[in-house]
Amino acid sequence: MPTSAPSRNRFERRRAETRRALVRAARQILAETGDASASIQAIAERADVGFGSFYNHFASKTELFDAAVMDALEELGQTFDEHLRGIDDPAELVAAGFRLSARLADSQPELMQVLRHRGFGHIHSPSGLAPRAVRDLEVGIASGRFTIADPTVALTALGGSLLALVELRFARPELDGDEAASNLAEMLLRMLGVSSEDAHDVARRPLPDLDGTPSART
Amino acid sequence: MPTSAPSRNRFERRRAETRRALVRAARQILAETGDASASIQAIAERADVGFGSFYNHFASKTELFDAAVMDALEELGQTFDEHLRGIDDPAELVAAGFRLSARLADSQPELMQVLRHRGFGHIHSPSGLAPRAVRDLEVGIASGRFTIADPTVALTALGGSLLALVELRFARPELDGDEAASNLAEMLLRMLGVSSEDAHDVARRPLPDLDGTPSART
Repeated sequence: MPTSAPSRNRFERRRAETRRALVRAARQILAETGDASASIQAIAERADVGFGSFYNHFASKTELFDAAVMDALEELGQTFDEHLRGIDDPAELVAAGFRLSARLADSQPELMQVLRHRGFGHIHSPSGLAPRAVRDLEVGIASGRFTIADPTVALTALGGSLLALVELRFARPELDGDEAASNLAEMLLRMLGVSSEDAHDVARRPLPDLDGTPSART
Repeated sequence: MPTSAPSRNRFERRRAETRRALVRAARQILAETGDASASIQAIAERADVGFGSFYNHFASKTELFDAAVMDALEELGQTFDEHLRGIDDPAELVAAGFRLSARLADSQPELMQVLRHRGFGHIHSPSGLAPRAVRDLEVGIASGRFTIADPTVALTALGGSLLALVELRFARPELDGDEAASNLAEMLLRMLGVSSEDAHDVARRPLPDLDGTPSART
C-alpha cells in the first residue's frame, strides 16, 4: 500500500532530522577534539539516534566527517558573505576571503587539522568556500579586474596555497599568521592580474571582525 | 671495552645499509601499489633484514614511508637538475620544475597518491624538490627577475598549487594535465612578478624528456 502524502512527508522530515543530528554530532566532535576516530556507536549516541540509522545516511565514518566538514565550510561561506557584503572589488573579496580563511587556523584549529588531512577534496567542492571564490573570480574576469583564462585553475592555486599556508602555520607556530596570509594574498592577486602596488594595498585592507555583528561597509 | 675503529666503521656501514634496504623496500611497495598498509614484517622481509632491525631505524611505519617519499623526491630533484642544466632563467627553471612535477601524476601515480595524503609535510622539506625551488626563487630575486619579498611564502604557493593540481588531475582524469600545468605555471610566474606576456611564453617552452639522456641546452 502506498504511503499517504502526509506520512511520507513526516518520514522525509524525520529522516532529514536524523541526518542533521549525525552531522551536528560529527561537527561537535571535530570542533572539540579534531579526532575522527570516534566510534560510530559514540557518534550515534551523541546524535541521540539509533546505531542502525547511521548506515541509512552514510556509507562510512569518513563520509560523515566529510559531510561535517562541508557543512562547516558552507556555514563559514555564509558568514564571510554576510561580513563582506558591501565590498564591490572582486580583488578585495578574494583577498579578504583568503585571509579570513587562514585565520581559522587560530579560531577553529580542529577544523583546520581535519582540512590538513582531507582538505584537497574540498578545493573544488560545489559548496562551502570554493563556489564563492569561483563567483568572485568570475566577477573579476567579467569586469577585467582579473586577467585570467580559467577560474578553475585559479581556484586550484588559491585553495592549494591556502592549505599549504595552514600547514606552514601548524609547522611554524612562531610565524605571524596574518602577515603571511597578507603576503600570500598579495602574491595571489598579482597572479590574477592585479598590479603589484594595488595588490599590496588591497591585501592589507582592514578585515571585518567575524565575531561582531555583520555590517555592510558604506 | 670500546669497539675498535674498523669494527665501528663496519657496524656503521652495515647499519646504513639496513636503513637503505628498508627505504628501498618501502619505495618499491609505494611504486607498485601506493599502499602504505603493508605490515612491518612484510617490509622487513622484502628488505631482507630482520624484523627487529626495523625499530633501530624508524619509530613507526609512517616514519619509514615519509623517508621513502623524501628519498624519491630527492632523486627526482637530482633528475630535474640534470635535465634542466643549461637553463639560466630562474623563471623557466621554476616553471619547468612545476610542470615536470605535475607530470608525475602520470608517470609515478603511486608516489603522487601518497603525496595527496602526506604531501603538505614535504612542501617546506629540507630535501627533495623544495630546496631546489627555493634556490631558483632566490636566484630570481637576486637578479630582479622575481619581485617577491619572501621565498618561503612563494614556496607555499608553488607547493600548495602543485598538490592541488595533482588532486584535480586525480579527480578529473579527462583534464589535459600538461595544459593545466602550463596554465598554472603561467599564473604562478605572474605571481612572482614576471610580466603576463613573458609568463605565457616561458610556461610553454619545450620540456626535457626525463626518460632520455640528460643533455645541456646550448
